[in-house]
Amino acid sequence: MHAIDCIVSAPGKAILHGEHAVVHGKVALAVSLNLRTFLRLQATSTSKVCINLPNINTFLSWDVSALQHLLQDKTIDHGNLKELDADLVRRLREFTGIEDGSTDTRSMAVSAFLYIYFSVFSKSKALPSLTVTVWSELPTGAGLGSSAAYCVCVAAALLSTQGAVSCPLGPDGDTARWSGEELEMINQWAFQGERIIHGNPSGVDNAVSTWGSILRYHAGKITPLQRVPTLRILLTNTQVPRSTKTLVAGVKDKINKFPSVLNPVLESVDAVSCMCEQTLMEMAKGSPTAEHYATLEELMDINQHHLNVMGVGHPSLDTLCTVTLRRGLHSKLTGAGGGGCGITLLRPDTDNAVVQSTIQDLKDTGYECWETNIGVPGIQLHSPHSIKEEVMNVFNSY
Amino acid sequence: MHAIDCIVSAPGKAILHGEHAVVHGKVALAVSLNLRTFLRLQATSTSKVCINLPNINTFLSWDVSALQHLLQDKTIDHGNLKELDADLVRRLREFTGIEDGSTDTRSMAVSAFLYIYFSVFSKSKALPSLTVTVWSELPTGAGLGSSAAYCVCVAAALLSTQGAVSCPLGPDGDTARWSGEELEMINQWAFQGERIIHGNPSGVDNAVSTWGSILRYHAGKITPLQRVPTLRILLTNTQVPRSTKTLVAGVKDKINKFPSVLNPVLESVDAVSCMCEQTLMEMAKGSPTAEHYATLEELMDINQHHLNVMGVGHPSLDTLCTVTLRRGLHSKLTGAGGGGCGITLLRPDTDNAVVQSTIQDLKDTGYECWETNIGVPGIQLHSPHSIKEEVMNVFNSY
Repeated sequence: MHAIDCIVSAPGKAILHGEHAVVHGKVALAVSLNLRTFLRLQATSTSKVCINLPNINTFLSWDVSALQHLLQDKTIDHGNLKELDADLVRRLREFTGIEDGSTDTRSMAVSAFLYIYFSVFSKSKALPSLTVTVWSELPTGAGLGSSAAYCVCVAAALLSTQGAVSCPLGPDGDTARWSGEELEMINQWAFQGERIIHGNPSGVDNAVSTWGSILRYHAGKITPLQRVPTLRILLTNTQVPRSTKTLVAGVKDKINKFPSVLNPVLESVDAVSCMCEQTLMEMAKGSPTAEHYATLEELMDINQHHLNVMGVGHPSLDTLCTVTLRRGLHSKLTGAGGGGCGITLLRPDTDNAVVQSTIQDLKDTGYECWETNIGVPGIQLHSPHSIKEEVMNVFNSY
Repeated sequence: MHAIDCIVSAPGKAILHGEHAVVHGKVALAVSLNLRTFLRLQATSTSKVCINLPNINTFLSWDVSALQHLLQDKTIDHGNLKELDADLVRRLREFTGIEDGSTDTRSMAVSAFLYIYFSVFSKSKALPSLTVTVWSELPTGAGLGSSAAYCVCVAAALLSTQGAVSCPLGPDGDTARWSGEELEMINQWAFQGERIIHGNPSGVDNAVSTWGSILRYHAGKITPLQRVPTLRILLTNTQVPRSTKTLVAGVKDKINKFPSVLNPVLESVDAVSCMCEQTLMEMAKGSPTAEHYATLEELMDINQHHLNVMGVGHPSLDTLCTVTLRRGLHSKLTGAGGGGCGITLLRPDTDNAVVQSTIQDLKDTGYECWETNIGVPGIQLHSPHSIKEEVMNVFNSY
């Protein structure tokens, strides 16, 4: 078959409110983050499948014939996206030599790609020869959904190439999105990739990366919110390493130790998420006012205190809050806490000088800091000339 | 009549947990603070009543005959301690020339003293000639119950002198306390003084100063807790001025703005107070363990975050928490917040070097800091030789 070239990009995710509380049945708001992962797929006639992942210094290629051999005598149930094809996973492991239980980023990225590649093209007459290059603005392992953005890009590009979803970009278009049904299919395939990488993911990360905007996540149910405003933020990585598992267990222990103290705090976090959702809806309906932003700031401050009560704060995050508040800006941790990342809300009229000074302050503290947006579109198809130069330069190096 | 000399002392108060939440029907724990107010009453034959309040640079004296004149044709209902004698208040105002609505510390202290003096001695044949000198370790206007400690001392000394309560100090005794019934009378008279000073006080401050130890305050009901441990603390005055009224109003506004967010926080504070009470009870029953102290510290941290959520935190209090945590010590604001005072828990085995370094750090930050205790005895009668030298030196200067 003949593959069609394409370039796609998908956003990362941040938790606006409800991290940790969501584990205990409360509402969380997950937002798309405009630090994006870009993927270029090129059809080739090399009879090879090449994957270039310069962020993690991984460049691999396989002969299509070897890949074809792997599928011998194998039936793939294309309709079943509810669980992984265990037989395919086993064959992949044998083929790549990646050990069972291996969790390094490189092995996971390669396994997820090959799994989706095989599954999507197994019903085609022949496996296509192609080169995939991925470049991401997202740091890995920082709780910003980098693996989901990667899986969503891989799924969208391979499904488009295979023809399972359309290629909605017209000859003069810069960017395009898929229909709701097609996005649902991309999301489900991306989720298979996430399963390869994370074992038992919640599905929130790939949903945010696919649908963009903001998602409400409650008791396992994911609901995309329509028509929410895009917000300016700073995304700061304190670069303090943490274990999500340990932090989640710590919150549970604290709830068990002081149930009467902690349970109302979880309730309050739930209310913070709902108030924030309501405020964003109002902002989208009319024109956002300074009062709306003051409310968003107040809710961030409150939730940051609550997260400290849950024991997932960290001195590095206190510093983030103090440093930004000195410039009149409000911050909270996002995700697991205990270090990791924080978000700082910028108002539409926040002076650029203030933004730049704050970024400098945070960098001086030893943090990584990006000025970006939340509530942005999910997976998109791009024409080559609509891609920023730095990303095209990366693509053109491979 | 012949007055009897005596020296009494009464403690200040701090709020351990539940400040602000108590206004909204939740439990608060008020603790006695071993920064004490000392009062010496001396019988004289000068036919004068003298009051020396060196802390506020106030030294006044009146002829007994002039005071007697003020009571002419006046009936005082000694049994009625439920409200102030409005006629007596009016006569006092005319006599002292203190204007209605005047709230300066000096006027208030003098009015409260004279009110209790007249009320207690009006049933005696003649008003006694005496000199009262008061020296307090408590800063005034810092929310530490300095006015209540003063009123409790005045009430106890005047009631003892009048014979309405006993003089329980034996010839060889150092300190003594009154019976529960007598303490109740002292407390009620002190409350009259507090009414003169504050208009509509809760009665918590004078109760703590009278009974000592720790009081549970809930929905207007004050319950002294029996057998609680004395705890070592640092009491820090950030010296940042604040308005309790404004802070209380701010919390109310916040509850009205975000009821679903704030009401659970008040519930959680209530649970913190109850958990703290329970922990103190356990500590008093058996021997206090490191785990007990860890729980007390954790509850302080949690409540400090909750108070921040209520909007009554202040950068000066954040600094207090950060500076003390650097030495492994846990702090929270006490009272109204927005500056004012904070308490830092010390463990029995906290090294003196750590305590001294922390005090120095806090002083370097520009704060006043005292190493003292909470959960100490209330109003006490002292023999002169049991009084520390610095206080006796003050007494002997007048």
